[in-house]
Amino acid sequence: MGRRAGTDGLTHIQVERFMHYYHFIANRQDRNPDDTFTSAQVAESAGMDGSLVRKDLAAINIRGCSGRGFRTDESLEAIRYILGFDEILRAVIIGAGRLGGALASYHSFTDYGVEICGLFDIAPHKTGLTIGAFEVRHVSSLPNIVRQMSASIAILTVPPEAAQESADNAVAAGIRGIWNFAGTRLELPKDVCVRHEHISVGLAELGYKLRNAT
Amino acid sequence: MGRRAGTDGLTHIQVERFMHYYHFIANRQDRNPDDTFTSAQVAESAGMDGSLVRKDLAAINIRGCSGRGFRTDESLEAIRYILGFDEILRAVIIGAGRLGGALASYHSFTDYGVEICGLFDIAPHKTGLTIGAFEVRHVSSLPNIVRQMSASIAILTVPPEAAQESADNAVAAGIRGIWNFAGTRLELPKDVCVRHEHISVGLAELGYKLRNAT
Repeated sequence: MGRRAGTDGLTHIQVERFMHYYHFIANRQDRNPDDTFTSAQVAESAGMDGSLVRKDLAAINIRGCSGRGFRTDESLEAIRYILGFDEILRAVIIGAGRLGGALASYHSFTDYGVEICGLFDIAPHKTGLTIGAFEVRHVSSLPNIVRQMSASIAILTVPPEAAQESADNAVAAGIRGIWNFAGTRLELPKDVCVRHEHISVGLAELGYKLRNAT
Repeated sequence: MGRRAGTDGLTHIQVERFMHYYHFIANRQDRNPDDTFTSAQVAESAGMDGSLVRKDLAAINIRGCSGRGFRTDESLEAIRYILGFDEILRAVIIGAGRLGGALASYHSFTDYGVEICGLFDIAPHKTGLTIGAFEVRHVSSLPNIVRQMSASIAILTVPPEAAQESADNAVAAGIRGIWNFAGTRLELPKDVCVRHEHISVGLAELGYKLRNAT
């Protein structure tokens, strides 16, 4: 589908900012469904500038009321719309180790418009095991399931040395986007979207803050 | 300890950029230890501007050779130094579910200057289980272990409703930094560093790119 009204396409950095706003606002709404918030509160939670928050919110037509701030319900809806969370994409997980199992057991991906529809592994002894809501399938059945379920995303939780082949197989099966936890770069066709996830970035940042705390 | 020479302290965004450079360079070096790279290559891999990469590298005294680019080995060393990876911090994991187990089994945190020294859970039936290299301990022993090991980081992989109490207990035990996977905000003393990890940000970004691919 095409781009959403009100934006010519968000950059990587803008999507990350909207996700931050989304988490901040959702958290407030969980505590009080009728809550409001100010741009200063969001800015403080992220260590960023309030004017940037206001500009971002205004860009997607989230309008505050003078003196009362922004409504959480309307703001969440606007961010969900702009990020496309209401249009569900289907994903398969390749690699049924601990991390693959943890992601398969994570219930909140549908909140972000992604539904997990299968968990695969190359190891025959894992085939048939139940992890979370999934029975582990052998990777040889990946092409069939991807086609049947119209899955477009593969979540790669395989060891680094298996990542390229797994990604190639996923793309051959029809996958268009890869969320790569394997820690290696992948050579893929230009029309395949890849997001490399380095879990260690958060820890490195926390470590940096601790080492440099005065 | 204090701030490193050559920097007045990096912002959150700068640390993330250096981590991106680090992963990019480390990946090249894995393939060829004598490799060099150009700022344009780094910039392309991150979808950012080459001049910003050059400015960042120059700020920490990474100098390229005209026509040959930057040396991977020297650049990795400089980034490791600036981010403090050679000064090991110790961390405990609280919550021995799938995600806690996945993180406990992750071998690369020491590459980023963090050593996991214990895995804890509140459930008595998990006490004594072996996950990765760790025997799960009951959280009641957390204060002792934190003190014995001089641990400064707690990695929170508990359910959201248990997050605040777990964090409070960790801080009372002497923890100074919290890597929070529980998905809720935490109320903590100002001198405790917190990094909220929302695994879904990467997936939301990938979904956004797929939905808006032309």
